[in-house]
Amino acid sequence: MTEQPPISVGIVGATGYAGQELVRLLARHPRTALRAVTASGDTAGPRRLPALARIWDSEVTPYSSTSFDGIDTVFLSVPEALAAALALEHLTAGRRVFDLSGAYRLRDASLRGRFYPNTPDPLPDHTLYALPELARSELPDARLVSCPGCYPAATLLGIGPLAVAGLLEGDVIVDAKSGVSGAGKAPSERTHFSENHGSVAAYGLFAHRHTPEMEQALGLPVTFVPHLVPLDRGLLATIYARVAPGVEAADLTVCYEAAYRHAAFVRLTGDQRLPEIKHVAHTNFCDIGWRLDRTTRRLIVVACIDNLLKGAAGQAVQNFNLAYGFSECDGLL
Amino acid sequence: MTEQPPISVGIVGATGYAGQELVRLLARHPRTALRAVTASGDTAGPRRLPALARIWDSEVTPYSSTSFDGIDTVFLSVPEALAAALALEHLTAGRRVFDLSGAYRLRDASLRGRFYPNTPDPLPDHTLYALPELARSELPDARLVSCPGCYPAATLLGIGPLAVAGLLEGDVIVDAKSGVSGAGKAPSERTHFSENHGSVAAYGLFAHRHTPEMEQALGLPVTFVPHLVPLDRGLLATIYARVAPGVEAADLTVCYEAAYRHAAFVRLTGDQRLPEIKHVAHTNFCDIGWRLDRTTRRLIVVACIDNLLKGAAGQAVQNFNLAYGFSECDGLL
Amino acid sequence: MTEQPPISVGIVGATGYAGQELVRLLARHPRTALRAVTASGDTAGPRRLPALARIWDSEVTPYSSTSFDGIDTVFLSVPEALAAALALEHLTAGRRVFDLSGAYRLRDASLRGRFYPNTPDPLPDHTLYALPELARSELPDARLVSCPGCYPAATLLGIGPLAVAGLLEGDVIVDAKSGVSGAGKAPSERTHFSENHGSVAAYGLFAHRHTPEMEQALGLPVTFVPHLVPLDRGLLATIYARVAPGVEAADLTVCYEAAYRHAAFVRLTGDQRLPEIKHVAHTNFCDIGWRLDRTTRRLIVVACIDNLLKGAAGQAVQNFNLAYGFSECDGLL
Amino acid sequence: MTEQPPISVGIVGATGYAGQELVRLLARHPRTALRAVTASGDTAGPRRLPALARIWDSEVTPYSSTSFDGIDTVFLSVPEALAAALALEHLTAGRRVFDLSGAYRLRDASLRGRFYPNTPDPLPDHTLYALPELARSELPDARLVSCPGCYPAATLLGIGPLAVAGLLEGDVIVDAKSGVSGAGKAPSERTHFSENHGSVAAYGLFAHRHTPEMEQALGLPVTFVPHLVPLDRGLLATIYARVAPGVEAADLTVCYEAAYRHAAFVRLTGDQRLPEIKHVAHTNFCDIGWRLDRTTRRLIVVACIDNLLKGAAGQAVQNFNLAYGFSECDGLL
Repeated sequence: MTEQPPISVGIVGATGYAGQELVRLLARHPRTALRAVTASGDTAGPRRLPALARIWDSEVTPYSSTSFDGIDTVFLSVPEALAAALALEHLTAGRRVFDLSGAYRLRDASLRGRFYPNTPDPLPDHTLYALPELARSELPDARLVSCPGCYPAATLLGIGPLAVAGLLEGDVIVDAKSGVSGAGKAPSERTHFSENHGSVAAYGLFAHRHTPEMEQALGLPVTFVPHLVPLDRGLLATIYARVAPGVEAADLTVCYEAAYRHAAFVRLTGDQRLPEIKHVAHTNFCDIGWRLDRTTRRLIVVACIDNLLKGAAGQAVQNFNLAYGFSECDGLL
Repeated sequence: MTEQPPISVGIVGATGYAGQELVRLLARHPRTALRAVTASGDTAGPRRLPALARIWDSEVTPYSSTSFDGIDTVFLSVPEALAAALALEHLTAGRRVFDLSGAYRLRDASLRGRFYPNTPDPLPDHTLYALPELARSELPDARLVSCPGCYPAATLLGIGPLAVAGLLEGDVIVDAKSGVSGAGKAPSERTHFSENHGSVAAYGLFAHRHTPEMEQALGLPVTFVPHLVPLDRGLLATIYARVAPGVEAADLTVCYEAAYRHAAFVRLTGDQRLPEIKHVAHTNFCDIGWRLDRTTRRLIVVACIDNLLKGAAGQAVQNFNLAYGFSECDGLL
Repeated sequence: MTEQPPISVGIVGATGYAGQELVRLLARHPRTALRAVTASGDTAGPRRLPALARIWDSEVTPYSSTSFDGIDTVFLSVPEALAAALALEHLTAGRRVFDLSGAYRLRDASLRGRFYPNTPDPLPDHTLYALPELARSELPDARLVSCPGCYPAATLLGIGPLAVAGLLEGDVIVDAKSGVSGAGKAPSERTHFSENHGSVAAYGLFAHRHTPEMEQALGLPVTFVPHLVPLDRGLLATIYARVAPGVEAADLTVCYEAAYRHAAFVRLTGDQRLPEIKHVAHTNFCDIGWRLDRTTRRLIVVACIDNLLKGAAGQAVQNFNLAYGFSECDGLL
Repeated sequence: MTEQPPISVGIVGATGYAGQELVRLLARHPRTALRAVTASGDTAGPRRLPALARIWDSEVTPYSSTSFDGIDTVFLSVPEALAAALALEHLTAGRRVFDLSGAYRLRDASLRGRFYPNTPDPLPDHTLYALPELARSELPDARLVSCPGCYPAATLLGIGPLAVAGLLEGDVIVDAKSGVSGAGKAPSERTHFSENHGSVAAYGLFAHRHTPEMEQALGLPVTFVPHLVPLDRGLLATIYARVAPGVEAADLTVCYEAAYRHAAFVRLTGDQRLPEIKHVAHTNFCDIGWRLDRTTRRLIVVACIDNLLKGAAGQAVQNFNLAYGFSECDGLL
């Protein structure tokens, strides 16, 4: 066992749902010392997180940059306009930054200008868009780690290896079903209990900013329709693609197994059993199953994750582990 | 069949959950012409109610008193301060008023002053607190009908006849479980989806204004704890009382059956089968079951209703039916 | 108003979820006399339906064909093997039959033999597969009315008119989200509360018998993936198609409005607002919204219904109304 | 850090909900080696637990007593008739037994004979009914540890210390709301999704075997009504008691704080904030809040737990930790 001292870490945006999961994970992480936990702004006074009592018993303080003096690494769980600015501030102060927002996800400057107008151009040096399973070797050099959104995380885990291997052709349809916690903690009509209980609703057709993020990573056109389903935590993506001529079921299996041989948090259910949200909720796992119809070359992939863990806080901590050379699983199992 | 012309009715507060149910019921009621449907204030512009398309296709308009010119009867589904004022305005204009708020529910002036400080004192002439099953004969003379709250409605239907008949002694505990629609349509942390899904929470201990309303009707001290449960519509009250010495199970059955012999919307499940919310949701029924332990004289009564229908809009329409001498069931089955 | 005597009707399979909805609808239908209500077999004794007390207070009896003596019309809500046989029996006895099962849905004998092996070949004379909105004029001549499945009902209402008008090309993807009542009333691991709460699961990939039913009606290849979502009643289908070259958004609007001009139960939310299950649950409505991306010609249609009403019992009663020349809405609003 | 070798443990009944939680906890417990994991009977073949893949990747095997050769400690998560027999078998074989069933919970032989007729009389030596917080010092000597039921666990944590200190008088009412996982994994009408979604139902009035268990520990008469609420995991008990004359709010606070000063898993929310299931689900915590009305001496206590962890598997592991002298928290945080 290494004798390395713990990494001192801080969190901005700790009162949101993903932020609270960061606190829960980092307070018990064997390699970190959680030294600063702040809200995203400076207005609210200090407050406790009742659900985390006995796990982390300090107070979330209003944001101030001096709270982070002496801290090595900062996790940002704040809206993207704020993340765009705070990432620069903490990078300049010499800290490594793990950003859960979308601010630094898009490489193409014009797309980025459209979806994330507050992000600087060009991107800072050593910025890395990192899905941990696919960016393993690049993470140690990254200073600003931009973590994928919850929908892209499930989608890229689900078909990223197939797309990269050239096994797919044509466009891809991603029909995703997300728990309501994905819409955040701020009360609104859209997140009101009575509007979601007993209901399902699609939103963001042809307009969701996770679409260019998926297209960037897959290199294929994506039609993406997210839906809110009446549950709290979890996200299931049903992905419709077509395999290139000559691709057989066995090729898919080989590709998946090669891609995820060393991935502690990807569980392949294969082409017989399908994943269910229940099996991944409250975990950092991504479960992936699939079926190929040979005649039509139609491929259906089902991938599911906990949107707050593998789709947000857990994934950021996994990136942190890989960036520092720790075990991928530290603090996550 | 009578040849009586329809009663022209109006609704104030039609965009809330109970208000929308009033629109649904009154738009199809065989005895009414729904002539005015307004919001509770004058700020928002006209808007449609998508869930009611094809049932009622007009627009909810901002409130203005002139909208009610020529109208006979007004239903108020607005907060109590506003209801206190609007009831007087419409009474003065010669209209019959059915008030779903708490403004006119308490007879005792000092209690009323504490819980509903905007209500005038003394109450207007011909004000009647009316649970339809227990106020049947008085309703034709009432001009301002104050409809019980959802928790008192279930509780009074559940043990009102026993209390009136003197079969109970000591204090009563009402442990109620309500769907979240009972907390209204305004988004808040308390009504946020993710805060209620997978959760149950008690609230309002020793402080809920429905307590004096129950005590007024029962003549017994009441300890009342409401809980939000993760469903949309429905309310189940578990009521703990003690029967007077000598009261037998058969006495309870006789009392219930006498009280509800002609009550179209009360269904006694008896002392073998217990009611469930599922059986009353989206209906105007109240289901009531009970069990008596002879040795300890402990009585448990379970009563359940749909909080928006039998606990609000349906009950108001039932009161309307009885006040005008129509069949109790008109527009409600 | 007509002086026509009521049609005497009977129901087989009244204890299932769709069967109970049939009882609820037909007991209050202004044109029917509900004379026989039986279970699907002869083993269980008579039993009451507590949720329907005061609406229909008789008992469901074991099945016997003599129960239907003197009855004009029979609704079958039983598994398809049984429906295949009972339909013949009641047709032979001179009764009109409305079959909610899949037994008589497929025209192609070889497909039918594969998915519904108990169905006779050829089909009886005057057999009609009838989605009421699209079979209006043919229903009066039908003797055996085969009602669409819940998934096909939403899908065909959603894109049937576009397909018939030749506005679509290529294949169609139907990603459907159904409440668990669609899986029936028999307890199983798949319908266990704890397996579905907080979960979403896909099932039946490339194997669901509703696929050939959709392809038969649309004349286009269909990839269909149903999902169970954690709610009781309702079904939302997200349909991915491609419009033919030159088809504009306005063409879609014109086509939909023409197809549904006289359809009392189809509500077009248009290309701005999307349907939600909450708005159709416990109703016979189908809400339909859509979005077209001109550049890629990708069309997304969202259609939703209550699976037990518009997807089963309500649709059957609507077919009944049209078959007998009654108003489409009788007993359904 | 101690150098003690791990305790070799086995589980009987690993496929049920509580059993799976035992596997999850014990597979990662720092002090145990999980050597045998069996079903409750010998009929089903080996099977995997998909939700636990990567956490525990072996197979649940059919039960056979030889599977437990060489094992120190056995956890029983099986029905009480089977538990009664298996506990004896494993005790005789020299193993320590942690029994999650009710078989050994009641001290009074006649009550035990009524509720658990398969349990031997007298009880084996060194049998201990153990709520960990209240049996801390006795656990090291116990050989058969009978773990409380989920309802008694919440209730005894909620008012046990007050009862023991003599601060209460009269009878106690426990109105409990449980997630459906408490009813187990076997499909039934009572646990069918559609019967519970959107519903609440009381059951077991004056008949639940957890009542004598509570009365035994509290020394007070208990009226207990459990309810199923539409969520998966969690249990909230609302407890109505009366304090003895002269007892003040401060006395309650002092009593609670003394009782739970060293209790890692009890979180007192005090008399201002109330517990909610959401905060304890998927944890081993019990949150407790209360309110006293001085005038009437009416006390309301709200206690909540995760029924499968603090109410079953977590509590058993906590008992295990204390019995072996480990930290109470090992494997549970």
